[in-house]
Amino acid sequence: MLPPALDELARLLGRLRGVGRKTAQRLALQLLDSPDDYLKSLGASIVGLRERVRRCSQCRGLTEQDPCLLCTDPRRRDDLLCIVADVPDQYAVEASAAFDGRYFVLHGLISPLDDTGPDEIEADRLVERAGGGRTAEVILALPPSPEGEATGHYLAGRLHEAGVPRITRIAYGVPHGVELGFVDRVSMAHALSRRHEVDK
Amino acid sequence: MLPPALDELARLLGRLRGVGRKTAQRLALQLLDSPDDYLKSLGASIVGLRERVRRCSQCRGLTEQDPCLLCTDPRRRDDLLCIVADVPDQYAVEASAAFDGRYFVLHGLISPLDDTGPDEIEADRLVERAGGGRTAEVILALPPSPEGEATGHYLAGRLHEAGVPRITRIAYGVPHGVELGFVDRVSMAHALSRRHEVDK
Repeated sequence: MLPPALDELARLLGRLRGVGRKTAQRLALQLLDSPDDYLKSLGASIVGLRERVRRCSQCRGLTEQDPCLLCTDPRRRDDLLCIVADVPDQYAVEASAAFDGRYFVLHGLISPLDDTGPDEIEADRLVERAGGGRTAEVILALPPSPEGEATGHYLAGRLHEAGVPRITRIAYGVPHGVELGFVDRVSMAHALSRRHEVDK
Repeated sequence: MLPPALDELARLLGRLRGVGRKTAQRLALQLLDSPDDYLKSLGASIVGLRERVRRCSQCRGLTEQDPCLLCTDPRRRDDLLCIVADVPDQYAVEASAAFDGRYFVLHGLISPLDDTGPDEIEADRLVERAGGGRTAEVILALPPSPEGEATGHYLAGRLHEAGVPRITRIAYGVPHGVELGFVDRVSMAHALSRRHEVDK
């Protein structure tokens, strides 16, 4: 029904999570009515995204310069490391303003069903980063899900082995099943302040 | 918080209707994780859209060739003209498979508050297209809103003057306040079959 160019755009947009067929068609029609400079900016931004944004070699967070600003900021503590599953989770922790250490982004959680193991979340790299007496405390800021629990349990074991003196996890101040990226700042600050020891 | 390139993309996406700040950020992050060839296709599709898709010179519908396929299809009736407010509405009528004439797309409705008058919907062009004894019936397939009513009333007057012998409107088989583009095919077919005369 749609002209081929619009149909192609709608199909491409429809491949994004959370964008259904009708929504994709409406977005495509809306784009057709948008100013040329907007379309050029948006197109260039999408095409150039991967060239400009990469993973930080230290924390695996997203950045345009390596190491990232969070890893090089001298006002942040070097001996405190917060482990998060994903970038939105990292931003939720940072937005709480209750954490002033460094991060490590797993970009996933251990999940046997999805074939995601310690290699995929770069557990060795994390242990190397946190071990060697450099880190006083590792905070596990992982989601309250079976995968989050399994990942936290596995990493706590590895980090204890590597001699990290204190391993904590954020308090369950957040309702079960909610994605960390959607938690408000106050709840996240609460969860950080109520963190407790992980048993050896 | 986001790297500048991601932030810029999120801001651009956030300018689209129905895309909030959080959704725009999630989409930007999802795009960052998408394959390069997908990003290239999507970017090129957005940038090239306006060059490929234009308005048909006869019906003002969207097309890549002028006149469009609906205007040149010899199996469709030439003496039956359906007037719709917008492209999604045109597609909803077409999807009902209950109409085999030609279209005229207004790309808007008369609305004094929005400064949209007869010129913006190209009423003169419509009258020229429908008049001259060429058209046996004009069907007004406009939304059941005050703007739809006002536009239908105005156009019916102009078309009667131009000598169009029969002017009808689709039956209100659709709930008030719903956008025509979201109406299911059966209801739209019903609304077409129950169309009735517009009083002179």
